[in-house]
Amino acid sequence: MSPIIFLPFEKEIEPDGDLTLLQLARKVGVPLEAPCGGKRICGKCKVIVGRSNRPLPPPSEREQDLLGKLVQKGYRLACDTILTHGASVVIPEESRTGRQVILTSDTRHPYPVRLRPHVTRCHVEVPAPAINAVLADRERLLLALKEAYGIRSPEMDLFVLRQLPQALRSDPKGVTATLRDGKEIIDLRAGREERLYGVAFDVGTTTVVAFLMDMVSGEKRAVMPAMNPQIALGDDVITRISFCQERPDGLDKLRSEIVACLNGLVAEATAQAGIDPGRIMEATVVGNTAMHHLLAGLDPRYLSMAPYPPVLQAGQTLKARDLGLHIGTSAYVHLLPLKAGFVGSDTIACILATGLHKRKAPALLIDLGTNGEIVFGNRDRILCCSTAAGPAFEGGHIRWGMRAAAGAIERVRIDPDTLNVEWETIDHEKPSGLCGSGIISAAAEMIRSGIILSRGNMNGSLQTPRLREGEDGWEFVLVWGSETATGQDIVLTQRDVAELQMAKSAVYAGASVLIEKYGTASFSRIFLAGACGNYVDPRDACVIDLFPGCLNAKVVGVGNAAGHGACLALLDRNKSKEAERIARNAEYVELAAANRFQELFVSSMCFTSAGDFEDDF
Amino acid sequence: MSPIIFLPFEKEIEPDGDLTLLQLARKVGVPLEAPCGGKRICGKCKVIVGRSNRPLPPPSEREQDLLGKLVQKGYRLACDTILTHGASVVIPEESRTGRQVILTSDTRHPYPVRLRPHVTRCHVEVPAPAINAVLADRERLLLALKEAYGIRSPEMDLFVLRQLPQALRSDPKGVTATLRDGKEIIDLRAGREERLYGVAFDVGTTTVVAFLMDMVSGEKRAVMPAMNPQIALGDDVITRISFCQERPDGLDKLRSEIVACLNGLVAEATAQAGIDPGRIMEATVVGNTAMHHLLAGLDPRYLSMAPYPPVLQAGQTLKARDLGLHIGTSAYVHLLPLKAGFVGSDTIACILATGLHKRKAPALLIDLGTNGEIVFGNRDRILCCSTAAGPAFEGGHIRWGMRAAAGAIERVRIDPDTLNVEWETIDHEKPSGLCGSGIISAAAEMIRSGIILSRGNMNGSLQTPRLREGEDGWEFVLVWGSETATGQDIVLTQRDVAELQMAKSAVYAGASVLIEKYGTASFSRIFLAGACGNYVDPRDACVIDLFPGCLNAKVVGVGNAAGHGACLALLDRNKSKEAERIARNAEYVELAAANRFQELFVSSMCFTSAGDFEDDF
Repeated sequence: MSPIIFLPFEKEIEPDGDLTLLQLARKVGVPLEAPCGGKRICGKCKVIVGRSNRPLPPPSEREQDLLGKLVQKGYRLACDTILTHGASVVIPEESRTGRQVILTSDTRHPYPVRLRPHVTRCHVEVPAPAINAVLADRERLLLALKEAYGIRSPEMDLFVLRQLPQALRSDPKGVTATLRDGKEIIDLRAGREERLYGVAFDVGTTTVVAFLMDMVSGEKRAVMPAMNPQIALGDDVITRISFCQERPDGLDKLRSEIVACLNGLVAEATAQAGIDPGRIMEATVVGNTAMHHLLAGLDPRYLSMAPYPPVLQAGQTLKARDLGLHIGTSAYVHLLPLKAGFVGSDTIACILATGLHKRKAPALLIDLGTNGEIVFGNRDRILCCSTAAGPAFEGGHIRWGMRAAAGAIERVRIDPDTLNVEWETIDHEKPSGLCGSGIISAAAEMIRSGIILSRGNMNGSLQTPRLREGEDGWEFVLVWGSETATGQDIVLTQRDVAELQMAKSAVYAGASVLIEKYGTASFSRIFLAGACGNYVDPRDACVIDLFPGCLNAKVVGVGNAAGHGACLALLDRNKSKEAERIARNAEYVELAAANRFQELFVSSMCFTSAGDFEDDF
Repeated sequence: MSPIIFLPFEKEIEPDGDLTLLQLARKVGVPLEAPCGGKRICGKCKVIVGRSNRPLPPPSEREQDLLGKLVQKGYRLACDTILTHGASVVIPEESRTGRQVILTSDTRHPYPVRLRPHVTRCHVEVPAPAINAVLADRERLLLALKEAYGIRSPEMDLFVLRQLPQALRSDPKGVTATLRDGKEIIDLRAGREERLYGVAFDVGTTTVVAFLMDMVSGEKRAVMPAMNPQIALGDDVITRISFCQERPDGLDKLRSEIVACLNGLVAEATAQAGIDPGRIMEATVVGNTAMHHLLAGLDPRYLSMAPYPPVLQAGQTLKARDLGLHIGTSAYVHLLPLKAGFVGSDTIACILATGLHKRKAPALLIDLGTNGEIVFGNRDRILCCSTAAGPAFEGGHIRWGMRAAAGAIERVRIDPDTLNVEWETIDHEKPSGLCGSGIISAAAEMIRSGIILSRGNMNGSLQTPRLREGEDGWEFVLVWGSETATGQDIVLTQRDVAELQMAKSAVYAGASVLIEKYGTASFSRIFLAGACGNYVDPRDACVIDLFPGCLNAKVVGVGNAAGHGACLALLDRNKSKEAERIARNAEYVELAAANRFQELFVSSMCFTSAGDFEDDF
């Protein structure tokens, strides 16, 4: 007896008059959707019966109801069809459940994802042209794809067409075509090709990260960070926008810098993983709006003029070659959607990664960076805003501030009695400065031990050699020069504390505005994103009043959630649709136009956990 | 009272309770389809009522029947809707009749065409971004297009996106977007832009012609011919294919030659017409299959190996920039479909242009060139083949043969009594050789005056100094050296006649195979395409037995029908769909596999109109 073959998975099983196609598919591990559990309710387990050894039983009433016109195209419901004879059953793209995997991550937050990328591989054998009725190479390939996979008339990229005659004739085992959304053939290789790679980029103002992903296993094959080379042309977003306005070739220069950077990352990542970059079949990009515009070569000048309109908001899919990206010649790059001039696709990706948009209970999401993007909401409503927090959380404008690199102090402990200081550095190297979490930790400890008072001023009456007057007023010595990498004392100054107050009150006030607007005071989860956010001790954050809700909500560091969001959208096309919905439905709150923000900003300057002395100053 | 405004035509008329929207549209000259004449039968006069001053009357039963689900989207039938108040009525793309024009042509055959190109212009005013709910530049443009034209979420090319912020802000009169099939924005300009240009290319082995078309008026703005520069790398198709096989960079070299040639033609044609090449928004290309492949960079080697499979058959639409064509950056090039390795898109375009595929009575179409492509059929069935006629019809392999250029003899008259010769040359210059029609004319006159006998040999017994023995046997002097440009006698040799016999019997036999296969002997029209075909005197063609059916069918020279077909597909997107159907449904007959062709080829060598002498040779 001939078997039932599930295509394109090529899994076989003997027909069984007692079991539906859905049950058989499950037995052999074919990933067929059936959210209703095979109860003939949801109509999602659509399959197409291709070659069949005998006539099929007619479609049931239920099938006709749920499938409508699709019945005429040969569609059946797997949960309502029993075959007693051999047949080939095609599982169309839309009926496949991707396999679920967990993205490896350096955070406490899991990133589960289904493997349902836009791109899929299809292996077919293409017969040689017949003498009597010559079909062209492309037409024979399309016919083979239709017969084996039910794929109807996909387009074919010019550069794939150029590979076609050779590919068809160089391996008796056929060819493997890579299709995007079943609509376009973007790659063709002789023989059977199992591998499929993608790359996700997180383009930050300061740092750029590339994630090289295996789209078959869901594994990260390489993570490659780099400094954004645009830094040489402007430290922050606003300087770079000015650079575009001031120089006729400014935009083009910034664009080529970042494109070269991404190409460099691809080259390094693929070299490390031993992969040909031409096998990368899809890329996703997230970044703040200015970085997004600069990469795409879109004029960013209006981002710096009220009301700060971006050039586009919804996601944009481009040929990699049009962007200048050296991956598969016919591959696509998807730029995730963004919300506003200062709420970029990185924030949308953070929402996507944390799942905030699917939660029943509202949650607060804070991306601690130069622009602190803040999101509050749940599956019903999402509010977002951006606060000009300043660079303090990245070590900027802080005397001994530095980026989160080896030798940066990331955690501080101060004995409240002796005021002695213990510290931890990244990679256990000799301390050379303070990164964001180190600054927050130091300030929190100084509050706990009474060195910093509620208005932020240092308590000059304390008797310790560590507290002294310096150029910027009082300063507290965290590490004596004898122990540092530079030989100089590492201190936190009165001015540093003031800088931190500005930053934290901007975040606190921004979050409060969103929460008030949403109309709740109760939420149970706070996601802290960004390199700094991941290492901040939630208790320290509470002590410095970094955000509201500290006492009741669980604080979770989610690391580079933006990068993970980019990976999710790469691996699961449904996630990329979710991102569009998030960006469309989220409500952007312009803090500059909100009086309440100004009030809250001023009133959030204090450290409420600190001791208060009437005789401050 | 406010008027009814038909969009996008911006034609206004006062509401009238006695007249349907269709009647009003006709009064103001809005091009609205209504094949049934407004009898509420065909359902083609679909319109969308946009802004309306009062609630609309509910859709009639007829409208619900004919429109189905479209009713929910606001569609109405113009023939069944009467409005008594002001409203804006959008005529969607699919309901518009193009204006009919006649393509100017140098032939006796008219080329009527409707102006319905793939690309259309839409002018909109786009409001500035609002402070409260900032919409991005693209999103505001798309909203404006939806409101004014009912266009839903078109894609936007990256290079158009890069123009967007500036275009939106530089002219208070709004912007003009160019859309392709309503699906993608491929151009954007500040202000109101009325002009729209396209270019059609006919890429021959020897000659290339560009037609610069005004897509608003249907006028030819320039016709620019050039030699195909690939000639330097190989005279004919087979040599060029070998060139690709022999040299690793062969294909690339041939490709760049022809791309440079097309770009040169565009530059010349636009310079002549005073048009910016960047305003060309669409291009079409026809050519024989080898030229098509070389232009697209597709490996042509299998075209020279049985069964001669092409890389593709159906039409292919490409970004002009991917092909290297310097027209609008985001414009598309459409390569028309082809049928077989030796029946190219030029032949499909000839069928399209002559309308053979729409005729009730069968017709014969012959494209006289190195490969004589032959088509026979009508609206029910089309058969086609290619015969290796050899280069005789283009003056090749003929002692005094030359291309149809100034000084070429195109017509000959021989006095049957005196055997004196009169001749006409192109541009009335001193004769320097014979072009295709001149060769046919000379041979026909020599038959008529008894110089050439039925088996093709010359009658050596004739007493005239013009008939003499030369290197290649007998030769007949058409022009004495005293009158020629070179000073040498121009003759037709016995070998020339043999060459012509090979060519004409190939065409005759090929056509006969098709006609026999079709199963009719009766047809009333013969189309002669190609530069030579246009100038051949049908009576001469009959005398030399160039094709069957001479006595009953009307012979029409259709000139560069392939080029005209490319223009038709450029101006009317329905013609480009027709071309697909022609290519799909035409039946290709492989003459090499047809024994009947061999028989007919041999038996067609004779000149049946010539006198017969038993004592030949």
